[in-house]
Amino acid sequence: MSKSEVVELPVLEGADVVPCCPPLTAGELSRADAERMAAMFKALSDPVRLRLFSRIASHPGGEACVCDIADVGVSQPTVSHHLKKLREAGLLTSERRGTWVYYQVAPSVVAAMAALLDLRT
Amino acid sequence: MSKSEVVELPVLEGADVVPCCPPLTAGELSRADAERMAAMFKALSDPVRLRLFSRIASHPGGEACVCDIADVGVSQPTVSHHLKKLREAGLLTSERRGTWVYYQVAPSVVAAMAALLDLRT
Repeated sequence: MSKSEVVELPVLEGADVVPCCPPLTAGELSRADAERMAAMFKALSDPVRLRLFSRIASHPGGEACVCDIADVGVSQPTVSHHLKKLREAGLLTSERRGTWVYYQVAPSVVAAMAALLDLRT
Repeated sequence: MSKSEVVELPVLEGADVVPCCPPLTAGELSRADAERMAAMFKALSDPVRLRLFSRIASHPGGEACVCDIADVGVSQPTVSHHLKKLREAGLLTSERRGTWVYYQVAPSVVAAMAALLDLRT
C-alpha cells in the first residue's frame, strides 16, 4: 500500500478529552484533571514502554511498524500489551496495513504533557 | 544507513544537575536512561501525588509547607508517603524549618522531563 494513500485513522477512544490540562503551576488541580494526567504519566512509567515509545517517536514520520520495534528484549505478547497501554493512554494511535500494525505518536497529547510540566510563571 | 549505526545523542542544555535524558525522538534509548526516566514519570503517575506536586509548584516561590498542602482528602501518613516518593524521584527537595518541613519543586528536573517530551525534530 502506498504511503501517500489517504488512510482513515481509527478513532481513539477517549481521545477527545485529551489533550487536557493546565500547567502544574496554574493552581489547584481538579480531581478529574489529576486522574487524566496521572494516567498519561503512568503510560510512560515503565522502562520497556518508554523504549518502545522512544523507538516510534524517533522513527521517520513518528511512525513505526510493530516489526521495527519488537526487539526490545521482551516477548511479542508483552510488546503488544505495552503498545496497548500506550494507545489507551492516548499517546499512540495505530493502523493496520496489510499484515502489519503501524503505530504513530500522537504529538498533540505528548505536547500537552510537556506543557503541563512547564513551570515558568 | 545501517540501523546499527551509532547515533550520537544530543546533550540536553542545562541538564547538569539532572541525571538524564535525551529527547524521546533522539533515537535509541538506553536501558539505563529508560529506567531513570520511567522512575520520574512513575512519581507523577498517581492522582494524589500529582495534586500535591501541583500545589507545591503553584505556591509562591515553588515552595510550600506540608501544613499548606495536606488537605487533599487522604491521611497525613499517606501525604507523607507521597511526598517521600516525589523526593526520591528528585522532583522535590525538602527542608525542615522549626516545626515544619518545607517542600520545594526541583525546577531543573521537571524542565528535563518536559524537554524529553519535546517531539519537535
